[in-house]
Amino acid sequence: MSETNRPVPSVGMVGGGQLARMTHQAAIPLGVGFRVLANTPTDSAALVCADVQLGDDRALPDLLTFAKSCDVLTFDHEHVPEPVLRELERAGAVLRPGRDALRYAQDKLLMRVRAEELGAPCPRWRAVTTVEHVADFAAGTGWPVVLKAARGGYDGKGVWVVDDEAGAAVVVERATGAGVPLLVEEKVAFSRELAVQVARSPYGQVAVYPVVETVQRDGICHEVIAPAPGLDEEKATHAQELAIELAHALGVVGMLAVELFETERGVVVNELAMRPHNSGHWTIEGARTSQFEQHLRAVLDLPLGSPRTVGRYTVMANLLGGGDPDVFGRYIHVMARDPELKVHLYGKEVRPGRKIGHVTVVGDDHVDLLERARHAAAYLKGEA
Amino acid sequence: MSETNRPVPSVGMVGGGQLARMTHQAAIPLGVGFRVLANTPTDSAALVCADVQLGDDRALPDLLTFAKSCDVLTFDHEHVPEPVLRELERAGAVLRPGRDALRYAQDKLLMRVRAEELGAPCPRWRAVTTVEHVADFAAGTGWPVVLKAARGGYDGKGVWVVDDEAGAAVVVERATGAGVPLLVEEKVAFSRELAVQVARSPYGQVAVYPVVETVQRDGICHEVIAPAPGLDEEKATHAQELAIELAHALGVVGMLAVELFETERGVVVNELAMRPHNSGHWTIEGARTSQFEQHLRAVLDLPLGSPRTVGRYTVMANLLGGGDPDVFGRYIHVMARDPELKVHLYGKEVRPGRKIGHVTVVGDDHVDLLERARHAAAYLKGEA
Repeated sequence: MSETNRPVPSVGMVGGGQLARMTHQAAIPLGVGFRVLANTPTDSAALVCADVQLGDDRALPDLLTFAKSCDVLTFDHEHVPEPVLRELERAGAVLRPGRDALRYAQDKLLMRVRAEELGAPCPRWRAVTTVEHVADFAAGTGWPVVLKAARGGYDGKGVWVVDDEAGAAVVVERATGAGVPLLVEEKVAFSRELAVQVARSPYGQVAVYPVVETVQRDGICHEVIAPAPGLDEEKATHAQELAIELAHALGVVGMLAVELFETERGVVVNELAMRPHNSGHWTIEGARTSQFEQHLRAVLDLPLGSPRTVGRYTVMANLLGGGDPDVFGRYIHVMARDPELKVHLYGKEVRPGRKIGHVTVVGDDHVDLLERARHAAAYLKGEA
Repeated sequence: MSETNRPVPSVGMVGGGQLARMTHQAAIPLGVGFRVLANTPTDSAALVCADVQLGDDRALPDLLTFAKSCDVLTFDHEHVPEPVLRELERAGAVLRPGRDALRYAQDKLLMRVRAEELGAPCPRWRAVTTVEHVADFAAGTGWPVVLKAARGGYDGKGVWVVDDEAGAAVVVERATGAGVPLLVEEKVAFSRELAVQVARSPYGQVAVYPVVETVQRDGICHEVIAPAPGLDEEKATHAQELAIELAHALGVVGMLAVELFETERGVVVNELAMRPHNSGHWTIEGARTSQFEQHLRAVLDLPLGSPRTVGRYTVMANLLGGGDPDVFGRYIHVMARDPELKVHLYGKEVRPGRKIGHVTVVGDDHVDLLERARHAAAYLKGEA
């Protein structure tokens, strides 16, 4: 794409999921080139983006070809193996975030070691290879404990809450069998979950978004309230500073999401992601600069946009597939009921429990907004 | 594109300009199918949209092929000839707006006749074929007068302000030579120009946006301030009611833009457009539902979204090409200077005076917003 008589920079996003779809949407007004490496022509982003390379988004040959057509490579997910990233960098590809930063989003064990070095508040944890290690650890923290795959997982899962040695034994055996390294963490007694997002450019500029409340169920993000209602200002500032420190220390380029537990003693770091994140979908309508636009500006080393909020509160609820695939039939009723609500569909085939879209609503009263977003999500799932 | 297991409706937009580009952007979250019929692969919309048919966007064979792949056809411009529209309807294509409505946007003479029948305030006017007709008319209104091509035009123009008989003679001769029918209108003594947009669905639902002030220079829209500052509430309501009445009476489906003159005696209708319009680009950031989303909802007969404003004022300024094509080089400085400002680039080659994008800024003080938008537009043109 050429805006002007000289070429404009072009970003290639590895992976064709909904994050790439929404990043494409943000690339249109910016007028920058935007390409996607998608596995299939029906990937969420491939359905809408003009410039798609089909291929294996984790395999070196396809990534090398893709990299040649882009000034900068960035990622829809964390699944490109580290050795592949190394070869890409060796071949001269500009990865943003780079491999040195990405490994902390790919490996939870490395992330815990580094976060503690940096003085970030973390749950108690240790690497484990046997059920005896887990039992030893639980003797100090009490059961239940949380087992996590450091990288990858099995059966599509990477986090297991186990109540006792017998439960731990099942996970350790299956993970070991699948070659998945594990760590154990204390189950943090939190009052709620929070998240904070920050963008960082290669130049070192940062832009931090307000701390949000995230509501998870069965390990899936269901709702986000921005900003987190009633959050103590000091705690909010501390969380934002923490995210900025992590972004600088880990050398993140692009968006960083820090998922946190709010506890009586303060916030505790749960997970990191170095890409646009579900906890930031609210920014499309709720902030002057969406996380998708901000990610593009950051990876292209453009000046960052204002992360200022547009309304007092913004609430987002994920749309999960239900038993009846006719989402579009129900969509019309949701639109008619609430003309202020924004529905985002990702073009994905409906399967029970699968994220197929989200809804967003902006206003003054977060209780009312949450009720409306929840109703729409339930109705679209076929439950209301 | 399929969101669900049953097909979702698909809109085809005829023409690949920036209006189609921004409508594509709005189609992504809605999850509806969106195709473009573009003349070349470097058309503004063809650069970003996944689903493009290349062809002649005014020729029946290409339009018939295009229509087969879409549930609904809509338009980026008014240039599809009326006989072609008739054949498309005869072949079963669903045109929204339909041919009966579109002719009032295509033919200024028909529009004036119909608008007067409906009691809409219009400038004095008459159809003219000779310079004597113009002189007779001007004897009643005084010079200068405005000559308009009822359809089409010549030298890329369709409106001429002429000061005397000699000036009129040049236009009449050239228009007659080119087979262009003319009308003459009084030059309205207006205090400023206004515009109002309304969406109408086949079901008959309407959603009206606030009346905006438009600043034109050399016949090109330069700036829009939404809502029009200091506009008398009664006048604003009257303009909105007028737009709604016109939309119903003309059977418009989709967006209708009514361009108005504000005079001492009230508002006077200048022009109509039945598509997303430059006077509504501010709605992308400034309203809950952008004109592009609203147009899609209307042509698909979906419930309309809220046209409510997001901030107190939104100001838009068009970006026109200047002498130096390196817009992107200057873009970075504009972003750095004003992180709240949104730049939209259309992917068009820079030529002096050509619309290549726009900027938008939302806030409380319209004087400050206008200054910022103007500065950005001038800087991007290479003038500041």
